[in-house]
Amino acid sequence: MKEFFDFDAVEYDDNDRLLRVVDQTQLPHELTFINITDLEGLVDAIATLKVRGAPAIGIAGAIGAAVIMLRSDTEGHSDYLDYFKALSNKLIETRPTAVNLYNNLMRLEKIVVRECNNRSNLRSINSLLLQEALKIKAEDIEANLAMAERACSLLPKDPTILTYCNAGHMAVSRYGTALAPIYLAHSRGEKVKVYACETRPLLQGARITSFELQRAGVDVTLICDNMVAHLLSMGVVDAVITGCDRIAANGDVANKIGTHTLSICANRYNTPHYIIGPETTIDYGAATGNEIKIEERAANEITDFWYSKRMAPEGVKVFNPAFDITPSNLISAIITEKGLFRYPYNFKKNG
Amino acid sequence: MKEFFDFDAVEYDDNDRLLRVVDQTQLPHELTFINITDLEGLVDAIATLKVRGAPAIGIAGAIGAAVIMLRSDTEGHSDYLDYFKALSNKLIETRPTAVNLYNNLMRLEKIVVRECNNRSNLRSINSLLLQEALKIKAEDIEANLAMAERACSLLPKDPTILTYCNAGHMAVSRYGTALAPIYLAHSRGEKVKVYACETRPLLQGARITSFELQRAGVDVTLICDNMVAHLLSMGVVDAVITGCDRIAANGDVANKIGTHTLSICANRYNTPHYIIGPETTIDYGAATGNEIKIEERAANEITDFWYSKRMAPEGVKVFNPAFDITPSNLISAIITEKGLFRYPYNFKKNG
Repeated sequence: MKEFFDFDAVEYDDNDRLLRVVDQTQLPHELTFINITDLEGLVDAIATLKVRGAPAIGIAGAIGAAVIMLRSDTEGHSDYLDYFKALSNKLIETRPTAVNLYNNLMRLEKIVVRECNNRSNLRSINSLLLQEALKIKAEDIEANLAMAERACSLLPKDPTILTYCNAGHMAVSRYGTALAPIYLAHSRGEKVKVYACETRPLLQGARITSFELQRAGVDVTLICDNMVAHLLSMGVVDAVITGCDRIAANGDVANKIGTHTLSICANRYNTPHYIIGPETTIDYGAATGNEIKIEERAANEITDFWYSKRMAPEGVKVFNPAFDITPSNLISAIITEKGLFRYPYNFKKNG
Repeated sequence: MKEFFDFDAVEYDDNDRLLRVVDQTQLPHELTFINITDLEGLVDAIATLKVRGAPAIGIAGAIGAAVIMLRSDTEGHSDYLDYFKALSNKLIETRPTAVNLYNNLMRLEKIVVRECNNRSNLRSINSLLLQEALKIKAEDIEANLAMAERACSLLPKDPTILTYCNAGHMAVSRYGTALAPIYLAHSRGEKVKVYACETRPLLQGARITSFELQRAGVDVTLICDNMVAHLLSMGVVDAVITGCDRIAANGDVANKIGTHTLSICANRYNTPHYIIGPETTIDYGAATGNEIKIEERAANEITDFWYSKRMAPEGVKVFNPAFDITPSNLISAIITEKGLFRYPYNFKKNG
């Protein structure tokens, strides 16, 4: 299962008893890793988006919490429980919207409470926490594979996929969610072709998706987000596949800004849009998408480039058409100095 | 008519007998001007996109050619004609797709040929050329105003407009084409609100449209191109207005990449999409958009930022939602580790 990558985005190092994460802010320039042994380092990695993607944050939080407890010198069950709760609260307030982080820490807290009540030996509680954290990661990998199989059953052989943002190896475990069927088909020797949208303003598609697909040997071509209608109109895309941040009970999907635009265009060109995400993404508390609050972020993400260097890996393929054609039946009116024309257009007659 | 700007993007300076153009590559940081007196300077300004936008290039070519003839020391009609044809050919090959440049130079060449045949005095031919070039510009301003009036008749009072790329003061003459109704309504005291798409990869919307609207005192908000569906779904946009590079005989419109994506989204949310462009944009030789060849440009426009500084004017308003909601009826299937679901979604039933 590790055939494409010799690392995971979030890993436990058993020899050095530490959490190791890819520093995603350095992509696509360098693949660097950060060793995390204390709360300060973990909070920093999550807050500054060195580790990103809800599942990856959740796993980093769980393994990180287990590592910190392992290395703590608390004595007595009461101190141990207090120490765990304090670190758990600190982590949760670092990224309050990521539900996975919260859920995973609650799973660990349950163990801490139970074992402290049982007066278990603290070293054995440490072991149980680490075991649970690694189980959370293993479950994530398994769930992603199940979703990958299901998605592959919807795709033709040697498919061409259009994807958005990053829901792959770097954001989740191993195969990711939206990219999982791509890796699965690739692992079976199919010729998979992927178009990755750059995903403005933070360019996760250009920086991360095209990096990880290229590294895994998948044929990937980078486009700007505004090119999706043009690409879909060419009839070369078999399916649009994206991840999701939250799903309302009626199926409305909250995901990275731009997914909605992409989906409308896919619909117009009769291309299926598949959403892949774990069951925990479904929010039964939200009847429809109207009940999902949308975060607004800082203006300088758009007006300033926080990224002064190259934005995509060296050698990545790019499709860069300068223009596109808007079908005349979409246009409400064409205005020239000679007149105002409407569909069906006959400029000579009215002009 | 110059109420918003104390300059034009392309102007003839009568005192110094030269062509003056805004260096658009320096926007939005500095409003700098270039004085052009010879062919080398004119070719450089056009080739390096210091002057851009098909109508602006056409006018710069005409005034520039007149200025160069005015300053030439050719003697005799045969030399004069040869000199004009050589400079005209050189200009046309600098940007061969811009039809306006070609048409305008042909208008001037007709005069040169006629007057040389008439053995007119060379100084008087110079005057006729300059007169014709300034007439071309005046006609452009007049045509833009006519289009602006027509477009305004389609808009409510105090309209909110979504626009794309730049077809304004900087690209055309005075009011531009797509931005003309905005300036016209603004000049009449209406409260016009504009959303400008940044227009990847070369960011003409961020760098130029938001700059010129802000400078003219129009309320402008910058968004990323992928945000259009989200914005349109909010129901705040009265009309989408864009320019056009070429229009096929059936009304299919070739324009900056991304216009097609924007138009599909406008259609989905029942928002009119108006195209504004001069009659010369209609290409009767192309029956449909399929016959229009689309230029593909260099990969590094997408992968590298040629622009290391701030990309939009200081103080410009920005709308930067991090997520959007895709309506469930657009989604072909939602896949979780528990199952595959289709519209209408009932996760509990199938899960």
